[in-house]
Amino acid sequence: MTNSNAATTAEAEPHTTTNGSAKLAPTMRALVKSQDQPGLWFEGDRTLPTGSTGIVGVPGPTEALIRVTMAGVCGTDRHIYEWDQWAKGRIPVGIITGHEFVGEIVSVGEGVTRVQVGQRVTAEGHITAGTDFSSRTGNAHIARDMRILGVDRNGCFADYVMLPQDNVWPVHKGVPDKIAAVMDPLGNAVHTVMSAGVSAQSVLITGAGIIGLMAVTVAKAAGASKIFVTDIDERRLELAKKIGADFVFDPRKGDGWIDTIDQNTPGDGCDVLLEMSGAVSAINSGFRALRHGGTAALLGIPGKPFDFDLAKHIIFKGATVLGVNGRRMWATWYQMEELILSGKLQLDDIITHTLPFEQFDDAFKLMQSGDGIKVVLDLNA
Amino acid sequence: MTNSNAATTAEAEPHTTTNGSAKLAPTMRALVKSQDQPGLWFEGDRTLPTGSTGIVGVPGPTEALIRVTMAGVCGTDRHIYEWDQWAKGRIPVGIITGHEFVGEIVSVGEGVTRVQVGQRVTAEGHITAGTDFSSRTGNAHIARDMRILGVDRNGCFADYVMLPQDNVWPVHKGVPDKIAAVMDPLGNAVHTVMSAGVSAQSVLITGAGIIGLMAVTVAKAAGASKIFVTDIDERRLELAKKIGADFVFDPRKGDGWIDTIDQNTPGDGCDVLLEMSGAVSAINSGFRALRHGGTAALLGIPGKPFDFDLAKHIIFKGATVLGVNGRRMWATWYQMEELILSGKLQLDDIITHTLPFEQFDDAFKLMQSGDGIKVVLDLNA
Amino acid sequence: MTNSNAATTAEAEPHTTTNGSAKLAPTMRALVKSQDQPGLWFEGDRTLPTGSTGIVGVPGPTEALIRVTMAGVCGTDRHIYEWDQWAKGRIPVGIITGHEFVGEIVSVGEGVTRVQVGQRVTAEGHITAGTDFSSRTGNAHIARDMRILGVDRNGCFADYVMLPQDNVWPVHKGVPDKIAAVMDPLGNAVHTVMSAGVSAQSVLITGAGIIGLMAVTVAKAAGASKIFVTDIDERRLELAKKIGADFVFDPRKGDGWIDTIDQNTPGDGCDVLLEMSGAVSAINSGFRALRHGGTAALLGIPGKPFDFDLAKHIIFKGATVLGVNGRRMWATWYQMEELILSGKLQLDDIITHTLPFEQFDDAFKLMQSGDGIKVVLDLNA
Amino acid sequence: MTNSNAATTAEAEPHTTTNGSAKLAPTMRALVKSQDQPGLWFEGDRTLPTGSTGIVGVPGPTEALIRVTMAGVCGTDRHIYEWDQWAKGRIPVGIITGHEFVGEIVSVGEGVTRVQVGQRVTAEGHITAGTDFSSRTGNAHIARDMRILGVDRNGCFADYVMLPQDNVWPVHKGVPDKIAAVMDPLGNAVHTVMSAGVSAQSVLITGAGIIGLMAVTVAKAAGASKIFVTDIDERRLELAKKIGADFVFDPRKGDGWIDTIDQNTPGDGCDVLLEMSGAVSAINSGFRALRHGGTAALLGIPGKPFDFDLAKHIIFKGATVLGVNGRRMWATWYQMEELILSGKLQLDDIITHTLPFEQFDDAFKLMQSGDGIKVVLDLNA
Repeated sequence: MTNSNAATTAEAEPHTTTNGSAKLAPTMRALVKSQDQPGLWFEGDRTLPTGSTGIVGVPGPTEALIRVTMAGVCGTDRHIYEWDQWAKGRIPVGIITGHEFVGEIVSVGEGVTRVQVGQRVTAEGHITAGTDFSSRTGNAHIARDMRILGVDRNGCFADYVMLPQDNVWPVHKGVPDKIAAVMDPLGNAVHTVMSAGVSAQSVLITGAGIIGLMAVTVAKAAGASKIFVTDIDERRLELAKKIGADFVFDPRKGDGWIDTIDQNTPGDGCDVLLEMSGAVSAINSGFRALRHGGTAALLGIPGKPFDFDLAKHIIFKGATVLGVNGRRMWATWYQMEELILSGKLQLDDIITHTLPFEQFDDAFKLMQSGDGIKVVLDLNA
Repeated sequence: MTNSNAATTAEAEPHTTTNGSAKLAPTMRALVKSQDQPGLWFEGDRTLPTGSTGIVGVPGPTEALIRVTMAGVCGTDRHIYEWDQWAKGRIPVGIITGHEFVGEIVSVGEGVTRVQVGQRVTAEGHITAGTDFSSRTGNAHIARDMRILGVDRNGCFADYVMLPQDNVWPVHKGVPDKIAAVMDPLGNAVHTVMSAGVSAQSVLITGAGIIGLMAVTVAKAAGASKIFVTDIDERRLELAKKIGADFVFDPRKGDGWIDTIDQNTPGDGCDVLLEMSGAVSAINSGFRALRHGGTAALLGIPGKPFDFDLAKHIIFKGATVLGVNGRRMWATWYQMEELILSGKLQLDDIITHTLPFEQFDDAFKLMQSGDGIKVVLDLNA
Repeated sequence: MTNSNAATTAEAEPHTTTNGSAKLAPTMRALVKSQDQPGLWFEGDRTLPTGSTGIVGVPGPTEALIRVTMAGVCGTDRHIYEWDQWAKGRIPVGIITGHEFVGEIVSVGEGVTRVQVGQRVTAEGHITAGTDFSSRTGNAHIARDMRILGVDRNGCFADYVMLPQDNVWPVHKGVPDKIAAVMDPLGNAVHTVMSAGVSAQSVLITGAGIIGLMAVTVAKAAGASKIFVTDIDERRLELAKKIGADFVFDPRKGDGWIDTIDQNTPGDGCDVLLEMSGAVSAINSGFRALRHGGTAALLGIPGKPFDFDLAKHIIFKGATVLGVNGRRMWATWYQMEELILSGKLQLDDIITHTLPFEQFDDAFKLMQSGDGIKVVLDLNA
Repeated sequence: MTNSNAATTAEAEPHTTTNGSAKLAPTMRALVKSQDQPGLWFEGDRTLPTGSTGIVGVPGPTEALIRVTMAGVCGTDRHIYEWDQWAKGRIPVGIITGHEFVGEIVSVGEGVTRVQVGQRVTAEGHITAGTDFSSRTGNAHIARDMRILGVDRNGCFADYVMLPQDNVWPVHKGVPDKIAAVMDPLGNAVHTVMSAGVSAQSVLITGAGIIGLMAVTVAKAAGASKIFVTDIDERRLELAKKIGADFVFDPRKGDGWIDTIDQNTPGDGCDVLLEMSGAVSAINSGFRALRHGGTAALLGIPGKPFDFDLAKHIIFKGATVLGVNGRRMWATWYQMEELILSGKLQLDDIITHTLPFEQFDDAFKLMQSGDGIKVVLDLNA
């Protein structure tokens, strides 16, 4: 029996067993980091997830088993695919990768009361035991014991994924599958934008990668009065302009762009910096372009410590700096839903490709060449 | 010499005296509350303002004398014109009315360093000595000793008005005169919207009067995800829809609109209530439509105390309620400038008429009939 | 078999069954609202709680069964005891009352991972399904579907109480039982104080009942610079002074106390109002004593709507008003724990009596006479 | 005529001239950075300040001339005295130094309305034209054009100092001269503590210098639940403990202290970091000790850029970082006044010495040896 048959079976006889669960295929398709070298390997007969019961395909008391229909490919997945220094140090060989998806709940544990079989869902991939200070005060996304789907435990590049009910987000019927599949990175953009607060503010976004571009359309929808974007890729800058940037700059062409920001803002600098690149030069020039008393939200991750002028960039300036990680459960998700439903987000230009699951290699090539931005894998295609 | 000549003279020979001041006409035109009865009276030869020096037309050390070019007519002016209970109790007979305007500085005192002769300016009409707690902590707009231009002291419905330099706002060259003339009420709308915070939030605006309508376009520009508006005038509701409202309701047609809000918001109610009417029924139903944990910003002023359910509307709901008065100096003004320059505000539909100064009676008639919304008087016409 | 034997049994053989649960007595003691008239009735052989399983004494998959050791008597319990209008309309006859307690977990469901058998615990009595907007955004305490322990479902005036694991709070070893038993009302005080923010602020507390008095010691510990208290009971005012108030006033003696506040605050009024009485006169005079731009947190519940001057008290003043209900899960609880452990809270003067469970009638009499303030029932005595 | 006679004269005949000004001495004493080398030089016959009029001793229209009675010696003054790299690059030779003082207004310009002759005052030493974005939005302390008293313009180590009225703070009668003289650095501590928010929070203060020690007593008074302090000087640590620290650590003795903080905080780290040292090692270990989601307020100024782990310390942690500079006008000053008047601040142990003006050299020696902490110069002694 092939994996796609398995999926078909689950679809053909859904939700009919006594405990409300669909009949499951015995094995599934999955993208696995099978070897300690670059690449991902497609497996056609991977066993289903086990969850807390340890029994294949059976959710623990508070878990849900989800059939994945679409999955987004993240920059993090590319790190794992290319097997860079960070990936080698963090990713256990043998893991199923992937953490962005949409799917349908096919089975739940007996203590599950917050979601139900048949619901179309996506999920928050930051998983915690729920007992530490952060988890218990509305900040589970930065819990000490937080483990990430597809990074620290088996992920969603597979026909099935198992998750605690408290990580599952029922998708509003007005949100298309393709967008539901990328609510994880979109949530990063929304969390960054909403943390900083952009309403009637001038905003500089340094770095027009996937999340940087999402931040452009989110910032515009969230009420930014003026949006500046820097990147070193002309195509990205053009796209940024198309979806909402008022000014775009390639900083390799000199520092004049900082003067342009000064001249176009009443406070001699932008009100808000959203740092999305992790590049040292972008961080430094971003802070230079920030006005006194401004707010910087940092999402991009510098590869290592670097020579930083804390006095000039933060202290003398009276700046507020926000470290941003993940997304807030579930405040960010509601904000995201509101923004999507408002029709203001221009995501179609950012989600450039949808490919059948088995063509995952092409997805990574599109990202590497820059011809694609966000690529979504379709497990039903 | 007529007053319009006076104005011409000031224009013809501007800024040429040794101290940088323009030559002034000996008298000026003014709209005065001359009698203890309904109406306003046009005076053609009123003496110029005296300021703290007590000398006609001469600014005190920290004052500026401004030649008015356009002035907005406010609902407050209409109260004074119609001489209602509030007006009789507050307005001194003999006062020059008006508090919304744009003009040009023609003369400044010797201690003035923050503005200069020749600048195009408008002003914050809430005037304080600057020595109380609120004034000294960034909240001069609610100072204990606050006195209002055109209400407690001579206003701007005149060729000249005198103000402390700390109340003067230089107008950005990108802001047209007609809009600069109404930055006072627009500032009310911006202060209300920005206090509540509407970015990615569902917003209910109760009352589509001048400031309520301004709040619609401001809320949209500031990033509201969904805007609901109530009023009992169909024309106002239509206009609200034109400039940004997603849903408009006439509450006289029943309470079904509250259910509509519930069904169109994830939190079973709107995130934000902006109360712009002062009407008891609107306040009560507005709070009913607010979600648990929501924020209400109250600008509309109920005529008198009324039976209010503090427990149900505020306490059990865990609501945050913000009293809004005036505008913040100068945070609100910068936000307003940013919003105007962003090109997102649709104010042309709200500023329905511009009339020559002498036709002020028509302005009030347009407001009374509902055929006009915001009317601006042109002192140069 | 008597109830105290039941408790002894559970103590004698704790935590020894295979699933980690203690052997339970077949019945228990409980205080029940047995009849539709004033009073509470002691039952010696009430069946144990059933929880979501419907089976006596057996927790559902995500529930915990707790043996109660001490329980606090709340003003709400007194309403139920006295059977006033509110109680008649809300409380189902037959319910076990009580919502403040400390105890020990004796049994948990198989999906329980966040707490464990043997833990000393108290609980948040606001119970929700966890699926609405408030619950999912860190505000479960004001969830739409929120039901209250001992009010809407069987409470803790009994040897055993059943609760969802997500409502259980493990008590820090440094917190004495007597204080752990009253963390619910103490949490009201902490939530009110922390919502308003009292650090280096002058604070007026209107109403020195149980929670008002707790607010005095909490506000002092939380850094209030000056504390004013009003009440009409001299003994309460004296106690307020003993535990931290700088000025106490009996408002029946005239309005001079508002002038005293004006003269002793730089902003001509207190920075913060904590309204703890629900009395109309206290609310009105409290707002009068609040400075412009001040913050009022309202916890006391007025019995019905009343004539309120929204314009004067909130709008013109630019006040911020916070409706306060319950306690935040778990931010308030951590703050509370920090405050208790800091040794700064003077609660011993507020918890005036500890009585054996069966003497519950005396507890209500102490509250009615004013001779007692907070009374705790000892189920082990 | 000696300078002390001059002072006596001003005192003997105060406020008797027609314009309300005291008769002034023709010259004054002053501490001057006369030469481009270490040291400060006492001048006995320096001309009086000129202000904006350019006329000796005559205030401009909005200026006040103040007779200094006591002045605090700051770490910044020591940098200037020792003539380090920073001082050489910033301080113009010939300048009168000093920026902390208390005194009495002896003369004001004709446009001065906010302060008056005879008032006991101190001042905010951050001076701006008042026209930039920060100045106009309540953040004058970080204005782009901000110039510092005794650093960029003549300071207060002299019998007279000239300041704009908008920088003058009338001192409450309940504040002793010795404390009024150090409200500038105390304001740094208060601004840092209040920006971070310490109410019911665990607080780590890295660096027990003058402002660090002030922060200890301020944090305690402002409601910190637990205070940790690090420094490498045993005497400072002992003093920190005396005035409010719960735990003190010498980090040179190993990293165990970070574990101690983890074990004594519910969030596995302190809620708040107040960085007062500017030392690289303190900054790094301070961030390590901060809990996830915690807040760091940075006042200490690192001498130069350094290798900083932005990802680990800020981004992954979801930290909020606040650059703190100066003090807010006048929010911080009111908070400070409230805290001083509350009687909770233990400043007497920090202000270790009061010396006659001429013994300024001893003041610097006391600071250099560590035998003194804050030294105040008495110009009347």
